[in-house]
Amino acid sequence: MAGSSDSPRHKHKVTVVGSGNWGTTVAKLVAENTREHKDIFEEDVQMWVFEENVVVPSDSPHYDAAVGDKPQKLTSVINTHHENVKYLPKIQLPPNVVANPSLLDAVKDSSILIFNLPHEFIGNVCKQIKGHILPSARGISCIKGVTVTEDKVELISEYIGETLGIYCGALSGANIANEIANELWCETTIAYNTPPCDRRAENGAANNSAEGEHRDARGQVSKTKLTAVPDDYPPVSHAELYKLFDRPYFTVSMVSDVVGVSLAGALKNIVALACGFIEGHGWNMTAKTAVMRRGMLETIQFCQEFFPETIQEMTFWESAGWSDMIVSCTSARNWRYSKMAVERGVSLHEVERTELNGQKLQGISTTKEVMSFLKARGVQDKYPLFKAVEGIVDGDFKVEDIPVLFRQ
Amino acid sequence: MAGSSDSPRHKHKVTVVGSGNWGTTVAKLVAENTREHKDIFEEDVQMWVFEENVVVPSDSPHYDAAVGDKPQKLTSVINTHHENVKYLPKIQLPPNVVANPSLLDAVKDSSILIFNLPHEFIGNVCKQIKGHILPSARGISCIKGVTVTEDKVELISEYIGETLGIYCGALSGANIANEIANELWCETTIAYNTPPCDRRAENGAANNSAEGEHRDARGQVSKTKLTAVPDDYPPVSHAELYKLFDRPYFTVSMVSDVVGVSLAGALKNIVALACGFIEGHGWNMTAKTAVMRRGMLETIQFCQEFFPETIQEMTFWESAGWSDMIVSCTSARNWRYSKMAVERGVSLHEVERTELNGQKLQGISTTKEVMSFLKARGVQDKYPLFKAVEGIVDGDFKVEDIPVLFRQ
Repeated sequence: MAGSSDSPRHKHKVTVVGSGNWGTTVAKLVAENTREHKDIFEEDVQMWVFEENVVVPSDSPHYDAAVGDKPQKLTSVINTHHENVKYLPKIQLPPNVVANPSLLDAVKDSSILIFNLPHEFIGNVCKQIKGHILPSARGISCIKGVTVTEDKVELISEYIGETLGIYCGALSGANIANEIANELWCETTIAYNTPPCDRRAENGAANNSAEGEHRDARGQVSKTKLTAVPDDYPPVSHAELYKLFDRPYFTVSMVSDVVGVSLAGALKNIVALACGFIEGHGWNMTAKTAVMRRGMLETIQFCQEFFPETIQEMTFWESAGWSDMIVSCTSARNWRYSKMAVERGVSLHEVERTELNGQKLQGISTTKEVMSFLKARGVQDKYPLFKAVEGIVDGDFKVEDIPVLFRQ
Repeated sequence: MAGSSDSPRHKHKVTVVGSGNWGTTVAKLVAENTREHKDIFEEDVQMWVFEENVVVPSDSPHYDAAVGDKPQKLTSVINTHHENVKYLPKIQLPPNVVANPSLLDAVKDSSILIFNLPHEFIGNVCKQIKGHILPSARGISCIKGVTVTEDKVELISEYIGETLGIYCGALSGANIANEIANELWCETTIAYNTPPCDRRAENGAANNSAEGEHRDARGQVSKTKLTAVPDDYPPVSHAELYKLFDRPYFTVSMVSDVVGVSLAGALKNIVALACGFIEGHGWNMTAKTAVMRRGMLETIQFCQEFFPETIQEMTFWESAGWSDMIVSCTSARNWRYSKMAVERGVSLHEVERTELNGQKLQGISTTKEVMSFLKARGVQDKYPLFKAVEGIVDGDFKVEDIPVLFRQ
């Protein structure tokens, strides 16, 4: 089974699971890189597309008079015209992005799986592909957020890894899909704590640890026994993931702290609500930076309190930390609607009803979940800003009292 | 000489040296606090005013038809109408702000001196008051910036302290004078490393260390021997300074790291130039956060390289760190003019000529000074962003090449 370590017989086959705005953008940049690193990756990148019918508008360059307004399969439009006309219009995809309507066929034999689809679909997708992927596959989750209940905090990457029996890292940063698709430069952070069984010895010949053992986000030996990346494949470590994701317009920073990256990406939504409240009340940028920084300190404190074994403070200076917090508190959805609620003198729930068609703001559920976790441990008072956000959402706390929280 | 420790015979007399926009704002808030803490501070706050003649405009509520357009002394207008009509118009000052045109009279017998005037005047002011202040006085510098030459980095607070033979801390944060004068809430950071000779024993009865010894910014025993704050005065430590500066609309955070606070307040100007370049080139917020964070990492690295004994990483999460960087890179002068230069395709020197009447941008001199200090030590390549900013200012580096600096 073991091939020559000097020239692995296999290359990594890459699949992007998801094809929305962000998924298609990631498929584009990854496919640009697989063409440039043919020694490591197979050129074609599979992109799983939830099949639907689309009508190509008559002003599109891909409009075909012979087809007219007849609905076509989205996968067929993507594979013919190399454009995701529905979710990432006007962006040319490299021809080696291959849209595939079959989830099982898209992930078959893939050794690198990139998960990029809405939070709420990940459970179902994992259940479907379980047992149908390479046991030595490795994952990267581009899905922000964590699942928090009274009982526990579960990272999305952990959930994927444990459900599928593989190791999965996380990508997160101050990233706006449309800007990246248009090749406007930004940065991102990839957190990947290469499992010991995948760490090859210096000569590249052999895995250097007990087969299958790795550490979970809490630093404990995981219950999931891994199948190591075989020696006849190139390794999967920071160097290879960097080559897979880094582009001249998309600068990648590699870290090992999956917990810090994931929690920063989730808890910022609470802080974004607070910033919207602050600005809606008429305070300016200087007040907003105060709230952002306090929110970041509570985020760091949360990580250190519940994940003391693995958290690294420098993670919060990464794009997934400070940069994403700033962008989320300046232009994103949670911030925009919480600002609007205060300006109009109505509740956030009212804004959800009138502006979002009853759709829920992610920041609210994150706040509720995190507070229920903190209350179950009796430590909610150590997180005054998070607590105040819940209070404002519930009508129990006044926005104008936020500064009082900051007094010694 | 020693009074009863239970009720010190003296109170602290406070003087604000400077009366510009920011100086008058600080005098206002400090005077509000001396009224609330009469057990510690004398109520009247002296404010030294560089005397000049002003004409009160006819639409001002302080216009006196009998005086008409006749020039009046600024100090007399302030003391009569409790408004600094020239530098902080339309803001009511508490009547216990006492404008004083005599520098020596204003600082006489003061035990707390707050320095708040433009960088370029501090040398002269210190020379004038040297020998005319209480030897046990303590200082707070509200002046941002440091003096950097090939030979050394000197903090403004250090310069003040060494010139006057006293100990001096620093106040810095994401602060906009007019907002604070209007009582719009924000935060600030005060760095003050209470000298050992001022640290009173638990019973409040006696100073608990060798008279006069204290540590400089580098953690070395200072050449300046201090006169301790006498026991018949209240102590000067974090608790008292907090009471002197903290207001419901101006939240103070006390730290001991004077170096971190001062250098963050200076080096941010280099980063603000970089952010202006980035946005002038057409990149957005996500790119700007990348540059800000890299600038912050180089700032932290600079502090750790040259002040390893005293620097505390958490300082950079203070208002004087991250918050001030964000505000400076979003709305301040260095950012605005560097953005303009790139948008117009001209050099920053050209913008100084045409927009600033030849006045110099502080960011440019900070960049030059810091780079000459780094070059003298041969470590300039460890600071690629700072180096690129100098290159862009000098026309040796292209803005569009900034992302290249970020590659691994």
